[in-house]
Amino acid sequence: MSIEDSVLDIGRKAREASAAMARANTGAKNKALLETARLIREHRGDLRAANQADLDQAKTNGLEPALLDRLALSEKAIDTMAEGLEQIAQLPDPIGEMTDFKNRPSGIQVGKMRVPLGVIGIIYEARPNVTVDAAGLCIKSGNSTILRGGSEAFRCNQALARLVAQGLEAAGLPAAAVQVIDTTDRAAVGALITMTQYVDVIVPRGGKGLIERISREAKVPVIKHLDGICHVFIDESADLEKAISIADNAKTHRYGTCNTMETLLVHQHVAKPVLTALGKIYADKGVEVRGCGRTCALLPTAKAATEEDWSTEYLAPILSVKVVDGLDQAIAHINRYSSQHTDSIVTDNHSHAMRFIREVDSASVMVNASTRFADGFEYGLGAEIGISTDKIHARGPVGLEGLTSQKWVVFGHGEIRQ
Amino acid sequence: MSIEDSVLDIGRKAREASAAMARANTGAKNKALLETARLIREHRGDLRAANQADLDQAKTNGLEPALLDRLALSEKAIDTMAEGLEQIAQLPDPIGEMTDFKNRPSGIQVGKMRVPLGVIGIIYEARPNVTVDAAGLCIKSGNSTILRGGSEAFRCNQALARLVAQGLEAAGLPAAAVQVIDTTDRAAVGALITMTQYVDVIVPRGGKGLIERISREAKVPVIKHLDGICHVFIDESADLEKAISIADNAKTHRYGTCNTMETLLVHQHVAKPVLTALGKIYADKGVEVRGCGRTCALLPTAKAATEEDWSTEYLAPILSVKVVDGLDQAIAHINRYSSQHTDSIVTDNHSHAMRFIREVDSASVMVNASTRFADGFEYGLGAEIGISTDKIHARGPVGLEGLTSQKWVVFGHGEIRQ
Repeated sequence: MSIEDSVLDIGRKAREASAAMARANTGAKNKALLETARLIREHRGDLRAANQADLDQAKTNGLEPALLDRLALSEKAIDTMAEGLEQIAQLPDPIGEMTDFKNRPSGIQVGKMRVPLGVIGIIYEARPNVTVDAAGLCIKSGNSTILRGGSEAFRCNQALARLVAQGLEAAGLPAAAVQVIDTTDRAAVGALITMTQYVDVIVPRGGKGLIERISREAKVPVIKHLDGICHVFIDESADLEKAISIADNAKTHRYGTCNTMETLLVHQHVAKPVLTALGKIYADKGVEVRGCGRTCALLPTAKAATEEDWSTEYLAPILSVKVVDGLDQAIAHINRYSSQHTDSIVTDNHSHAMRFIREVDSASVMVNASTRFADGFEYGLGAEIGISTDKIHARGPVGLEGLTSQKWVVFGHGEIRQ
Repeated sequence: MSIEDSVLDIGRKAREASAAMARANTGAKNKALLETARLIREHRGDLRAANQADLDQAKTNGLEPALLDRLALSEKAIDTMAEGLEQIAQLPDPIGEMTDFKNRPSGIQVGKMRVPLGVIGIIYEARPNVTVDAAGLCIKSGNSTILRGGSEAFRCNQALARLVAQGLEAAGLPAAAVQVIDTTDRAAVGALITMTQYVDVIVPRGGKGLIERISREAKVPVIKHLDGICHVFIDESADLEKAISIADNAKTHRYGTCNTMETLLVHQHVAKPVLTALGKIYADKGVEVRGCGRTCALLPTAKAATEEDWSTEYLAPILSVKVVDGLDQAIAHINRYSSQHTDSIVTDNHSHAMRFIREVDSASVMVNASTRFADGFEYGLGAEIGISTDKIHARGPVGLEGLTSQKWVVFGHGEIRQ
């Protein structure tokens, strides 16, 4: 069978299984999750052996140490995967929930019911934990899923897929509800993202290059997260102690995450005290500052920022800093350079706070809080399949609800249209 | 300037205007709507003259009579357009609405704010009223819009666009918030549906051919409505009087609408009385019945249905009828052949009703009501930009809310991530 035919076959089976998953009750879905968690713990030896074989192969192929790190599956990572499934089992089941019923003048009652999307394709890089995470979220939200992990994690993903299939079967659910594409051929991705008859949405998780390529070539809708160029704006009326603490945390809490601040904007009237204090903190922590002219004048250690800096996601201890005339310039800068991920204002001026959250066109807008809070767990979603920088369907952190849709339900009593 | 450059220029202006539209308060948006309504009434002579020129040209070009009918702009149609805008002004403004705030353990408060999508491209056939309708909905929802109507209505659309621009300017809003593409060249559509940097969503309104072509070629997300193959299933336990009334209304109230029933499914145990009564009604109204074997045995006037009939949207006084063994077969038939638009069960069995609405995978599922109710106005949306048969973003009738998105809002008090 050709790669395309084999992926089409997986798609057809996923579509068939999706009907049973949509009907499945909460008990069955939770049983599948808990049983898979148990099997993962029970088969930890097999999983580590499969992972070791992947690691050996990757070393032979000369994979970079950072990628080897992400590929490695420690004892702790195995426990975390199992715990993740147990946590998903604890979450409320969104499927079948009926809301917003209204009586209409015709006599009918109209409301909505939350339903699965159907079949979700997830494409990700060499991180075996994503296999279990994504499978768990799709099971709980009543979807079928087709997983395509990085080829480096091939053996481990196959081993995990077998355990998930066993978990599903133990709960009386179709094993085909979670399938891992069993080839490392790149043509499989091309087939997956174009078979609109079998796949309802694609969630790519990985670097910007992967996501751009998938978005460009996909025919199936994509829930995507390109990059996180997040801003903090310290307004004239900010509580400076809070402002400094937030600007410190937003940059230095973790450097490699998408909700890390990459550009700091400071109101001209408070630039001197703010940048003096922050300059010391950043210098102590080894953060390189790249500033506008006014920043460099106030902070001799800063390098001059180039135009490119304002649209760069560093994912590193580097920060671009710009002194702005006021709120209007801050909003204009953000709406021009932000990746529409997360932007925060520090202010005690209510009108400025309300204008900022209304006018900044980003998935998360914050007042007096660190951008690092933009996260499914911090927002109370209980889980996160990813963060969307799109506007359609799901925006910002995407939890179980982002994997669902709502259909209209009409309860009548024999009504006909006049 | 090439067609592509000229459409890019329109896109750039639309994107610029979208910031002002997103900020616009309800009063300004309503003023633009009401002023446009006034101008449409005032300039009815100009509009009819432009329409007459379009009609003359269309007749010269040999347009079909049915299409000429849709193109014609009567005095009544002009009043209806103006009234439509006045009704949109009456609707609550969805933009800026904040909901679902929750306190999180970290101390932050997380909720959502409803925001415009940004720039909406609307592609439609030769119906001038869509120009005004779509412009009105986009203005109220704080979006910029780029309209591309059928070339047959070119002069009338241009005349309407000028009035909308005047209405926007009278309210202090940018005229570029509503632009009509001023060329009949087909390349303009190609440019519009691929400039992802300037357009956030495309709403095509027209025949299946147009929509399929746009979906195939678009790079911008599409909210689409392909077809309406709607079913009514009369269950064994149905109140037969209501069932007959619903099956009559769903088919014969209007033949050409997307929410008209195209296939009737009848439980075998009630098929005889139901089909006898309905056969007479349909015969009296000139509805041709194409039935399965059991239907033809009970209803000698019925023709034999072919496999193709079950997936045909007749939009005509033709109905396919199938006798089924029970609920399972009815659901299976619908999930196979329905266009996932609207399907209804007539039953007094509660478990059957609940299984039907859960398991039928369509945008609208109904119990004891005519499929003809699937409509933005009947559902209380106050307006309708279209009906989506997609699952992503918007499903079923799409009103103002379907032209919006929600961003996350975090109110903090200086919180940092631990």
